[in-house]
Amino acid sequence: MATTTPRRRGPRATGDARSDILAAARSEFADKGYAAASVRGIARLAEVDPALVHHYFAGKSQLFAATMDLELDPHDIVRKILDGPRQDAGQRLVRTFLAIWDAPERRAQVAALVRSMFGGPPEKSPVREFVLPELIMRVCTELQVDDPARRAGLIASQMLGLIAGRYVLQLPPVVALGAEDMVRTYGETIRRYLFD
Amino acid sequence: MATTTPRRRGPRATGDARSDILAAARSEFADKGYAAASVRGIARLAEVDPALVHHYFAGKSQLFAATMDLELDPHDIVRKILDGPRQDAGQRLVRTFLAIWDAPERRAQVAALVRSMFGGPPEKSPVREFVLPELIMRVCTELQVDDPARRAGLIASQMLGLIAGRYVLQLPPVVALGAEDMVRTYGETIRRYLFD
Repeated sequence: MATTTPRRRGPRATGDARSDILAAARSEFADKGYAAASVRGIARLAEVDPALVHHYFAGKSQLFAATMDLELDPHDIVRKILDGPRQDAGQRLVRTFLAIWDAPERRAQVAALVRSMFGGPPEKSPVREFVLPELIMRVCTELQVDDPARRAGLIASQMLGLIAGRYVLQLPPVVALGAEDMVRTYGETIRRYLFD
Repeated sequence: MATTTPRRRGPRATGDARSDILAAARSEFADKGYAAASVRGIARLAEVDPALVHHYFAGKSQLFAATMDLELDPHDIVRKILDGPRQDAGQRLVRTFLAIWDAPERRAQVAALVRSMFGGPPEKSPVREFVLPELIMRVCTELQVDDPARRAGLIASQMLGLIAGRYVLQLPPVVALGAEDMVRTYGETIRRYLFD
């Protein structure tokens, strides 16, 4: 395959290389899922050299975050959650996730992403392939909790339900929750799921 | 409309009346949503007398439960959750919901229902129109908690995330949770959302 596909060494003459790479990445992640997609395959599809992908994006997880229009680097998200007193990690997790999702202009986009996941094959969903292993599981292992996979699953189930209830189904009492109420109430749930 | 649509006084000659009513109800709930649908409208669509609908189904909520192939009467579900020590209501809620959803032969059906909700308009989702007001909110008001709508929303967000994670996205650590672990762990979360 690789030998029959033309490669380029620089940005395409038509269009801008970063956009081409992002479009190729969206297509590759949608077709293969996060785990099976590769920077090399995305470069091939975008008809650029893999080094150019790495010029724009530090790695696969950062590229994936960019295809979801997440402006934050996943490593930064994890670091933000870990940065502070251990017992407050649950509240920081909720606060950090809300900072990404809950801006009024992002909500429709988050809802569209979740809808698309629920319509597609489960083994390719970004939650299963990306959010769970690259964000939530990483927080659990960095905190050195016992049975991190079970705890990550519990945390994912609560955060997923918050997104589903607030942005997708728009349940009135979930839409009505204030930011500080969510940080306190869901933060205590996440604290229990992390440490109890 | 009603005057131009023929009415029948008994079961249809072709097919069986209960199935016709269920088919009409599925169509009416899908078109109008639970809140706007009426037993009268469903009877009209099924071309039977409303009294015949009431002969087979106690009311709109029971009819709705039947269209979702829930074998349980919503009133019985609420009674089961309320029946026992107050502080264990959270665990009983999780146990009762799992008894409905978690049989291996029901999981695909639950996943299909949730997928369809996530694809459709939020204001017509059965969670927003039925599960929240007729089941969860009813439990909250019967327990005479303060701010029952907020508590019902919190509970809905956790139960929704459990369904989404376990049946739809099939996150491995959520699929792996044992029944007693879920009753204990999510039960404590629901207890807090009810009473803390």
